[in-house]
Amino acid sequence: MVGKAPITIKDIGRALNISPSTVSRALKNHPDISQSTKDSVNAYAKEFHYKPNTLALSLRMSKNNTIGVIVPEIVHYFFSSILSGIEQIANSEGFNVVLCQSDENYEKEVSNTKALIATRVSGVLASLSKHTNNYDHYRDVIDSDIPLVFFDRICIDISTDRVVVDDYAGAFAAVEYLIQTGCKRIAFYSSPLQLEISKNRKNGYLDALIKYGLQVDESLIKVCDTREEAIVITPEILDTPNRPDGFFAINDHCAAGILYACKLAKLRVPEDVSIMGFSDGELARACDPMLSTVEQHGYEMGRHAAKLLIDKINGVTHGQYTNKIVKTNLIIRGTTR
Amino acid sequence: MVGKAPITIKDIGRALNISPSTVSRALKNHPDISQSTKDSVNAYAKEFHYKPNTLALSLRMSKNNTIGVIVPEIVHYFFSSILSGIEQIANSEGFNVVLCQSDENYEKEVSNTKALIATRVSGVLASLSKHTNNYDHYRDVIDSDIPLVFFDRICIDISTDRVVVDDYAGAFAAVEYLIQTGCKRIAFYSSPLQLEISKNRKNGYLDALIKYGLQVDESLIKVCDTREEAIVITPEILDTPNRPDGFFAINDHCAAGILYACKLAKLRVPEDVSIMGFSDGELARACDPMLSTVEQHGYEMGRHAAKLLIDKINGVTHGQYTNKIVKTNLIIRGTTR
Repeated sequence: MVGKAPITIKDIGRALNISPSTVSRALKNHPDISQSTKDSVNAYAKEFHYKPNTLALSLRMSKNNTIGVIVPEIVHYFFSSILSGIEQIANSEGFNVVLCQSDENYEKEVSNTKALIATRVSGVLASLSKHTNNYDHYRDVIDSDIPLVFFDRICIDISTDRVVVDDYAGAFAAVEYLIQTGCKRIAFYSSPLQLEISKNRKNGYLDALIKYGLQVDESLIKVCDTREEAIVITPEILDTPNRPDGFFAINDHCAAGILYACKLAKLRVPEDVSIMGFSDGELARACDPMLSTVEQHGYEMGRHAAKLLIDKINGVTHGQYTNKIVKTNLIIRGTTR
Repeated sequence: MVGKAPITIKDIGRALNISPSTVSRALKNHPDISQSTKDSVNAYAKEFHYKPNTLALSLRMSKNNTIGVIVPEIVHYFFSSILSGIEQIANSEGFNVVLCQSDENYEKEVSNTKALIATRVSGVLASLSKHTNNYDHYRDVIDSDIPLVFFDRICIDISTDRVVVDDYAGAFAAVEYLIQTGCKRIAFYSSPLQLEISKNRKNGYLDALIKYGLQVDESLIKVCDTREEAIVITPEILDTPNRPDGFFAINDHCAAGILYACKLAKLRVPEDVSIMGFSDGELARACDPMLSTVEQHGYEMGRHAAKLLIDKINGVTHGQYTNKIVKTNLIIRGTTR
């Protein structure tokens, strides 16, 4: 090999017709990569005396004590409360928090990850934009040896730590309460259904209906997760001969829009229609009647996510993955019977 | 001087019995320092052949393209919208945003500034905690040659760029509207009065009363800026023989608490009592009736502050100070006549 440049991950990829990131993960024995691919990569690497670029590795290992956070929207109370929890733990552990928002936009989320990789942050905490369907930019984070923890809107296609609320149990309890207080036709307003939180809450909703022998009506399941959308679509659903007598909304903004639309339609809340939100915060208490909702502890979620990430950065939990589930609470106020 | 260590800023300070930071500012011809102090410092520096530490200077000048932001509370909608505007401009200009929250706590704010100085951020954007009365930690930022821009809760004792909303004009217009729609006894709920925003809004309130010949009653001016406090103190003020018929609140959280207390007291809003907030956001629209309020454009404020700071970092506006005032709008909804 004298006089020849050592082979790189790219060379191996080219020779085996696979991507450099697959080669990198195969060399690290990543669980996403098949055993046969790992075997070919390791055989090729051995035959051609592949050596990891130790300078690059040591640069990567140098710590700058900065955590990058990607959130869909800072102004959303739930995300700002998570951020507040992250900031609290990070600062107490001597880390700075670099903030990126995706604005619920896939392209911006990709550029956020690129910027954080270029900045060589110590770790990344991320919650997916609701329009993200492709996760290669997060694979790039991992391939750059930057620890990654997902929170709330997670990606199950990537093996990493995650912090979520018990979306299924929270939704099941919310819908069960609506049924137990007399609702028979319950609508569910959801975020886009490819998101894990939407799938899990929908399953909680469906299982509660099934447990109590209520019919599932797909026409009562709508993709709608903002106040503005709820104000637009709710009059239509209220104007059907067999209108719903209960609503379960994926967040309090959406529940506040449903409440507004019900009042405009001269329906009494909760006598004629019950409404249950999800989140809790000042918005829920500002509504009249105050919203019944599923309290999800954003600040706690942020603290857990930051702790998991810092443990990863410090090598405490190297090679393990944790799936932390934060409990929710049902808060019964004025919009349910 | 051969064989002797060169004199430092600390040596000059010790000799003249003034602080190192005063020496540093005197050497930079800072406007806060008196001419006589500058003259003594310069004379001493010349006599003892003072030379700035050029290595330290060049380290200081090296850019890491990071902006530090200090906000009182991220979960407050107004601050999260400012942060969103800062993030938008900073990212488009290739800067990362490092986030610090003071939690409305002076000690935490001091430790935030220390951390940002230690991190050698390119610049700092800050809004004061409501309990901050001493500003030396911000003088340290400036003395470390880190550009500083204040936004919203500014400090007028320090010469630097500032971005504020037109607090006086916004408050005047709000109170004038209450008077023009029939209110004769208007209470004002304020943040602590040492804050510039409180002083300016109080002046707007007082001048509107004076313009229309209404009596100023100090018992109607309360320090109260949260929903919880407003719910506690409002029943008492409503239970006086000569109760107010209008409320002007320093933010919408506080206005929402007043609304809640008025409803509990079986007063009709706006027929019996008018309520005007300050901020605008989803909280104002969630109230029933929806809050009349003074819209302050947080996102725009954040964009302006980030632009000013980046111009300073890039040396575009070296030596100039800008006081940017963002206009407010009166939004009339259901809590006023």
